[in-house]
Amino acid sequence: MTNPIQIVIIGCGAGGGTAAQFARKTDRTASITVFESGKYTQYSKCGLPYAIAGTISEFQNLIEFSEDWFKKEHINIHLETIVEKIDIQQKKIIARKGTEQIEKEFDALILATGAKPWIPPIQNLKHNEQLLQRVHVLRTIDDGKQILTQIQKGKKATIIGAGLIGLEMADTLYKKNMNVTVVEALPTILANTLDDDMSEPVLLALQKKISVYTNHLAIRAEEQHGCITSLIIREKTTGEEKKIQTDLLIIAAGTKPEITLAKTIGCTIGITGGIQVNETSETSVKNVYAVGDCTEYIDYVTNQPLGIGLGSIVVRQGIAAGINAAGGSYVLPPGVLLTRTSEFFEMEIAAVGPVKQSCQQVPVVSGRYKGSSRPDYFPGGEPIVIKVSAHEETGCIRSAQAVGNNAAQRINTLACAVLGKMSVEEFRKLETAYAPPIAPTLDTVTLACDVVSLKLARKRRQV
Amino acid sequence: MTNPIQIVIIGCGAGGGTAAQFARKTDRTASITVFESGKYTQYSKCGLPYAIAGTISEFQNLIEFSEDWFKKEHINIHLETIVEKIDIQQKKIIARKGTEQIEKEFDALILATGAKPWIPPIQNLKHNEQLLQRVHVLRTIDDGKQILTQIQKGKKATIIGAGLIGLEMADTLYKKNMNVTVVEALPTILANTLDDDMSEPVLLALQKKISVYTNHLAIRAEEQHGCITSLIIREKTTGEEKKIQTDLLIIAAGTKPEITLAKTIGCTIGITGGIQVNETSETSVKNVYAVGDCTEYIDYVTNQPLGIGLGSIVVRQGIAAGINAAGGSYVLPPGVLLTRTSEFFEMEIAAVGPVKQSCQQVPVVSGRYKGSSRPDYFPGGEPIVIKVSAHEETGCIRSAQAVGNNAAQRINTLACAVLGKMSVEEFRKLETAYAPPIAPTLDTVTLACDVVSLKLARKRRQV
Repeated sequence: MTNPIQIVIIGCGAGGGTAAQFARKTDRTASITVFESGKYTQYSKCGLPYAIAGTISEFQNLIEFSEDWFKKEHINIHLETIVEKIDIQQKKIIARKGTEQIEKEFDALILATGAKPWIPPIQNLKHNEQLLQRVHVLRTIDDGKQILTQIQKGKKATIIGAGLIGLEMADTLYKKNMNVTVVEALPTILANTLDDDMSEPVLLALQKKISVYTNHLAIRAEEQHGCITSLIIREKTTGEEKKIQTDLLIIAAGTKPEITLAKTIGCTIGITGGIQVNETSETSVKNVYAVGDCTEYIDYVTNQPLGIGLGSIVVRQGIAAGINAAGGSYVLPPGVLLTRTSEFFEMEIAAVGPVKQSCQQVPVVSGRYKGSSRPDYFPGGEPIVIKVSAHEETGCIRSAQAVGNNAAQRINTLACAVLGKMSVEEFRKLETAYAPPIAPTLDTVTLACDVVSLKLARKRRQV
Repeated sequence: MTNPIQIVIIGCGAGGGTAAQFARKTDRTASITVFESGKYTQYSKCGLPYAIAGTISEFQNLIEFSEDWFKKEHINIHLETIVEKIDIQQKKIIARKGTEQIEKEFDALILATGAKPWIPPIQNLKHNEQLLQRVHVLRTIDDGKQILTQIQKGKKATIIGAGLIGLEMADTLYKKNMNVTVVEALPTILANTLDDDMSEPVLLALQKKISVYTNHLAIRAEEQHGCITSLIIREKTTGEEKKIQTDLLIIAAGTKPEITLAKTIGCTIGITGGIQVNETSETSVKNVYAVGDCTEYIDYVTNQPLGIGLGSIVVRQGIAAGINAAGGSYVLPPGVLLTRTSEFFEMEIAAVGPVKQSCQQVPVVSGRYKGSSRPDYFPGGEPIVIKVSAHEETGCIRSAQAVGNNAAQRINTLACAVLGKMSVEEFRKLETAYAPPIAPTLDTVTLACDVVSLKLARKRRQV
């Protein structure tokens, strides 16, 4: 009888937790040990805004797999335990829980160390640890609880960053009856999710309910008695400054991959700052895998490296790493599609593929169609706008974006087309499901592709 | 200057109307003439149950393109006009409107003659024209108006046929506070839409609200003073008979393609009884196209001929025929996917590809997953069941069926996979859009494919 394989996983977020589960599914006898620096086992970070809003009644509910669940699966969990060192020669890790030191050997190691919030260079926060403590971020259950406490203390909230998380938090705080201001350094909101022309109507809708300052830098926080009382922002072009009174300051300006341990064992770090992984989720170091927000992977459409930050991808990497570390075989597609969605202020938005801003060098033809979820003659149709971009020469669908009714499920259909390298010409001929209460004979996904197809034909005639 | 091309279209339903529109888009100078035996220009037949229910406030609203609309597009419309003869040598048609005879030459002809309801062989209806008049079908606005009048006269309704239209009508009549009975000759409901295991829960849900007799033949209608008062049905296996009191009898048992004119000019008729058409929607007779319910085409998955009856396909054939007849080029995929959906009794169902019953000879592996529209931790998730079937050897997705939340849009994603000949192995790795209020990290579409994938792997190990 051979010894059971020993798998060590560092981090019990969505990536690490999923890896543990799939390692167990692959090998019922493997020794699986997970080290987590925080207090909780695998929970939904993406659910935090909804737990703060009260839609999810308790933070505890966010825990998807409890400590007991892992124990039942014979997965050893060490919470509040910091891995201090990986000895790659001896194939063991050295961890510390309080004063206790733990050593654990491994055959395969999975790094799921996550990411840390990126804090923009706000003058007086930079070297003022005490004041920095008063600034909120949203990565953990404890962060969420702190924000909830602070909400009860004031009426004015400011969020730095108009990405998905920033706007989800804006919605949450608005629902909590706060006056919400969002400050974004870029000229547009949702710059990583939507093209400018798609995000503009979203911005207009937001501005009916909250204040949004795009193209503004947060430059200084003002304090009174150790509390932040206002934020000074500066218009990037004109230099004009403005003071925003605030009782609660949240930074949602992106993250930095946590790669300290990975570097000590020589894992190759990519240009985005994440650990490079391949289609099996393995790093450049044999038998060392990495998953989730600490990694970078290839963009399926642009072939450029990309920092990973979407739960959907993290979970899929976790599946791959877990299965492969346990001796199974699971190969991911050669790149990520970045299928993404969110909902705030009663708008559902979704997208797949790169935004135009991030790949200006590739010649694409784009088409947009504003349709309805139902045929014109059927009452109650909801608006849906879809934009599709296709490669100018091949006609292959490279990206798609949607705002409105069932945006996410419609984008899933287009994501399937991107994965299958389908052209707009093929996709517009796809039979979509039709029934008067559900969808028109030609869905907006089809009509958006029709627009692209017409433009492509026109372009070809001009050549 | 050459003479403008002359296009004649017989039938102004969804197929003929769409063909006229796209012929016009393709050639602004073409002479386009449409002959329609009924009173109305292009309207939504599929919307009829909702106009009867009152969800759509007036039957008139179902008209998608009015006579005026066609006139503005310089398309000649002859309503209530019967085409009596096609002279294929002289390339002209002879039509009659009342006493007036109309002759019209054509360069291209488009047959959009539709289908007639199929009336099952009910003993005393067969040769009793007067009594047959009392039986209702649902093909035209006038049929709908007659049903609405009859609804006001009684409380009991019986529908023969438990397909999509039969069940949509059952829902309508239920909403109109009638006691509804549905009689189906086959052992299951929705036999052309769902596999038995998927339709069974739907049947159970229906039976809480209406009476459904599957495996029963309608054998005799009873009358009093020229009105139908009851229907005698017979259990096919046991022979047991039952009398159902009814004030309203609707037959929704399928249709027969209307091919009389097509036969006179030698169009090849396929084994389903429809006019054979190719990828350009052309018949076996050059420059004669056919679209819609009068045609048959190839099933993309089984490669078998199939009668066309879905609005989504009809419209796409109309686009092809219109463009090609006007000298453009539009090629349809080499077969139809049969993407379909409906909603009744608050259930959304959808499917793509053949039902298992219709292609038993092909070895498939099927997997079913019952999931939720949202992650477990997020309140308000709605159930969704998805079944996926894949070819046993290639793993290619052949069909998918869904009942529940956003069934139609989820099936669209799987329809894209069927069109792209994607395997379950590829599809389960497709990144789907995830956000807690919208969908879980692994959507039910993914998890259903996971089940199939596991079964396929198990099967391969056994070989």
